Amino acid sequence: MSVRLPPHLSVESFNAAIEEFRAALGVDWVFVDDDDVSLYRDAYSPRLGESGEKYASAAVAPQSVEEVQAVVRTANKYKIPLYPISTGRNLGYGGSAPVLSGSVVVDLKRMNRILEVNEQQAYALVEPGVSYFDLYRHLQEHDIALWVDFPAPAWGSPVGNALDRGMGGARVEHSDHWNQHCGLEVVTPTGEVMRTGMGALPGSKTWQTFRWGFGPTLDGLFCQSNFGIVTKMGFRMTRRPEAQLDATVILPRFSDLHEAARITLELIGLDVLRCGCAFASPALAPVVKADFPDDSPYWKLMQQDTQPTDAQMDEYVLFTGKPCWMVMLSFVGVAEVIQAQWAYAAKRYSVIAGASIPPPKLVTFPIPEELQAKMPMAPGVPSLSAFSAGTRASRGYDTPTTGHIWFSPLVPFDGAEIAKAHWVFNHILWKNKVRVFDPFLPNVDSSVCTMIFGFRFTEDHAWNARVRETYAEMVRVGAEHGWGLYRTHTMFMDEAVGTFSFDDHAQLRFTEKLKDAIDPNGIISAGRYGIWPGYLREKQ
Amino acid sequence: MSVRLPPHLSVESFNAAIEEFRAALGVDWVFVDDDDVSLYRDAYSPRLGESGEKYASAAVAPQSVEEVQAVVRTANKYKIPLYPISTGRNLGYGGSAPVLSGSVVVDLKRMNRILEVNEQQAYALVEPGVSYFDLYRHLQEHDIALWVDFPAPAWGSPVGNALDRGMGGARVEHSDHWNQHCGLEVVTPTGEVMRTGMGALPGSKTWQTFRWGFGPTLDGLFCQSNFGIVTKMGFRMTRRPEAQLDATVILPRFSDLHEAARITLELIGLDVLRCGCAFASPALAPVVKADFPDDSPYWKLMQQDTQPTDAQMDEYVLFTGKPCWMVMLSFVGVAEVIQAQWAYAAKRYSVIAGASIPPPKLVTFPIPEELQAKMPMAPGVPSLSAFSAGTRASRGYDTPTTGHIWFSPLVPFDGAEIAKAHWVFNHILWKNKVRVFDPFLPNVDSSVCTMIFGFRFTEDHAWNARVRETYAEMVRVGAEHGWGLYRTHTMFMDEAVGTFSFDDHAQLRFTEKLKDAIDPNGIISAGRYGIWPGYLREKQ
Repeated sequence: MSVRLPPHLSVESFNAAIEEFRAALGVDWVFVDDDDVSLYRDAYSPRLGESGEKYASAAVAPQSVEEVQAVVRTANKYKIPLYPISTGRNLGYGGSAPVLSGSVVVDLKRMNRILEVNEQQAYALVEPGVSYFDLYRHLQEHDIALWVDFPAPAWGSPVGNALDRGMGGARVEHSDHWNQHCGLEVVTPTGEVMRTGMGALPGSKTWQTFRWGFGPTLDGLFCQSNFGIVTKMGFRMTRRPEAQLDATVILPRFSDLHEAARITLELIGLDVLRCGCAFASPALAPVVKADFPDDSPYWKLMQQDTQPTDAQMDEYVLFTGKPCWMVMLSFVGVAEVIQAQWAYAAKRYSVIAGASIPPPKLVTFPIPEELQAKMPMAPGVPSLSAFSAGTRASRGYDTPTTGHIWFSPLVPFDGAEIAKAHWVFNHILWKNKVRVFDPFLPNVDSSVCTMIFGFRFTEDHAWNARVRETYAEMVRVGAEHGWGLYRTHTMFMDEAVGTFSFDDHAQLRFTEKLKDAIDPNGIISAGRYGIWPGYLREKQ
Repeated sequence: MSVRLPPHLSVESFNAAIEEFRAALGVDWVFVDDDDVSLYRDAYSPRLGESGEKYASAAVAPQSVEEVQAVVRTANKYKIPLYPISTGRNLGYGGSAPVLSGSVVVDLKRMNRILEVNEQQAYALVEPGVSYFDLYRHLQEHDIALWVDFPAPAWGSPVGNALDRGMGGARVEHSDHWNQHCGLEVVTPTGEVMRTGMGALPGSKTWQTFRWGFGPTLDGLFCQSNFGIVTKMGFRMTRRPEAQLDATVILPRFSDLHEAARITLELIGLDVLRCGCAFASPALAPVVKADFPDDSPYWKLMQQDTQPTDAQMDEYVLFTGKPCWMVMLSFVGVAEVIQAQWAYAAKRYSVIAGASIPPPKLVTFPIPEELQAKMPMAPGVPSLSAFSAGTRASRGYDTPTTGHIWFSPLVPFDGAEIAKAHWVFNHILWKNKVRVFDPFLPNVDSSVCTMIFGFRFTEDHAWNARVRETYAEMVRVGAEHGWGLYRTHTMFMDEAVGTFSFDDHAQLRFTEKLKDAIDPNGIISAGRYGIWPGYLREKQ
């Protein structure tokens, strides 16, 4: 047994804790052998097999709230850092590996009960080990006309995804999975069971339907953080729509972005566009195929020390012979209403000179199974097909990809800001010669634009080092422009939280005071989102 | 100067603090004379002029963040309990009087700058002293096509209202004012300035457009609580719609509630109904006029020891000769879309036997001023006309009303639950012979039903005592049925928070740990929403 111990911990204490875990959970559910524990490595790690990769020392898999409490009690007794995961599937953001190497992973996969689905009130109450697939199958088997909105791929846990503030593909507010949660049950770092929101009322009838509760709303403390172990979570679910209409608006010029952004925001504000939208770029996207060739007109523009003008960008797009933007819109609900919404939206976009609008596609639900089988990502049906994204062999990379991480800054949904961000980030990528996938894809969530860049890792350690430095540079330079991250990989959490430094890091210092009060021994997820327990704080 | 000192405070310390306040803010903005301080009494107090009424000892009115910090520093030095208010207008919930008598009110009315309104991104950033009227006038003067959603009456502060989780009349998600807030600036109890959400990033471009920030979301700690003094708040605003359609569905029977609730929830889930709805009852509402007459068929039903059956209620409604329900619906946005939404909704409601649906009314915006003047509560235009609610002379009350408070439990939006709550609460009212206004008005907010009962106070102290006992009984009995409050008057906060007792009050105890960590001297709003500082906790 070659255990990587947590800092400050003696082998004796560790072994004593392991024995207590075994007594509480049974020997089968306490993992210390390398073969078992290495399953909790981050398979997409930016340091896979390199120094600095994050490792667990052991893992435990409790099957009930009481067993979670027992684990927490033991951890407090021996000062064992724990790292709870739901299903540990957030690849690209750290997976199931702890932020602090040596932590004991608390794997909640056995707590996988769907406790309630209420069709009329459109909510579910689930445990952290439930996956999107589990929930989907439950809805199918019981013929419940509700949808679960899921990220792509959908093998993860609704609880874990919401706690990491993951996003899905449904309507604007439904795709924000944290926003859709309603009510928590938490085992606190001192081992108590707390229910938040209306759940604090014993026998509450509105735990899953009213979010704020009475008095301060504590739920926000438990997302992207380390204030407890969430053992139950409620979700407001999407009612299965009657129909969905998918439409595309094709815009010729780069500079059409300004008007397209204005119109899109207005359509969202007028409740016409309820699913946000994503922008694809036939003219700009293919450049990732090429390895920064010197003669590339595109990379010449990105090399400039000043932002290319709209006229320069328009000229480049004209040269490609392709349209600059495909604005992809979905309308979901009742056929008559979504057709009226689309008709209005089309009218608005069509004022942009040269806009072309192919006929939209309408599907009605439920989709017949034989038809569904032919759709790789059918609306409402969870899938793993997004896994093809990481490899991208067809895009002509020369080195096979071992994993990837996401850089996802938030930029105002405004043409000038997006154009600036496009140049700022691609300038850095060119300078460092780091190619990414999905280099420039504005997703509109309500009123903010999420840019998503995928950074690839390979077996070439020198390349990996350059990618990591580039990632860190983009975090820093993005922050200088006022574009903060919405989420990041465990390996970059200190770096990212460091940019949220207003008034000498007042928010982090406030959070640390809360952490010390709630988790005096610092046992839960040390370092997660930059929050370290007192005994490790000076070390970072 | 007959000052009511805070507990444990010497006259010397109080006077020294007042001198420091004067030095920091100027003598004109520190109030200690009875005439000045009594302006901060709760004009609608359930104990107006009786023992136990809440009083301030003094008030201060800082005009800047720095002055707020100075006040907080002095308060820490002398252990002075502070009670910040924005405009102090939440009559019915405690107004500007502190929870702990003797506290010094921190009146933020002078911090009344509208710092930014961004029309394209549809947000505003304001200080706490800004009123809904101020913001409305700003939008009018600058011809900005945004709406501010306001409560009725609209003289209060968007910041204060959101912090108390007040509700307005706009679309479902916009009417939840806390949900519409985006980003805070807070002076912490130890005098630091913290910006939450994306505002923690210096120069952030998405402080008012992305809510969660990076890491844990702290904002929820500052609503319905006492964790700091909010000095700036962002709001996502409503884009001025092109049109609004107001419609009513009239349903004959009490038992139609079941189907009406099911259909309404489905319409919300299908994105057809975006403004929630309210139920009025021509058959049931008039009974408040009568003083529980023995021969009243209605009150005979409410007297029963078991819930009246639907058949009994239907029979009573038939006897009145009036329809039981008027379902009031609004559709807001673009004319073509809202007409399609209404057509679909009307089709769905019309399956209820006996449903009658008068032609709806459509208005387009902006409303011409001459027309607006004729509408007492025109959509989008703030007003004070709701003040007529408290007096209700026309409803035949024999004693003039001095004030009122609201009892507002949350009940699942489900016919059976609403029917049960109707009987449970009216049974108590009958038993105690306490008449209320708006005795039974389901408001649907998203997926929960807010019932609102108005309790009147008069100059008759015996009556007032009975009303207070009845209110407390309804809090208690409602909780036994799983119906918790969403908000309450300062006088009943301990009672209400006491019902949220899951796992030996785990949530309150967790909150108290946070409070002690963040506000070690317990200076901010002692007792607000049942959260007392350590030095007063045992006393309660």
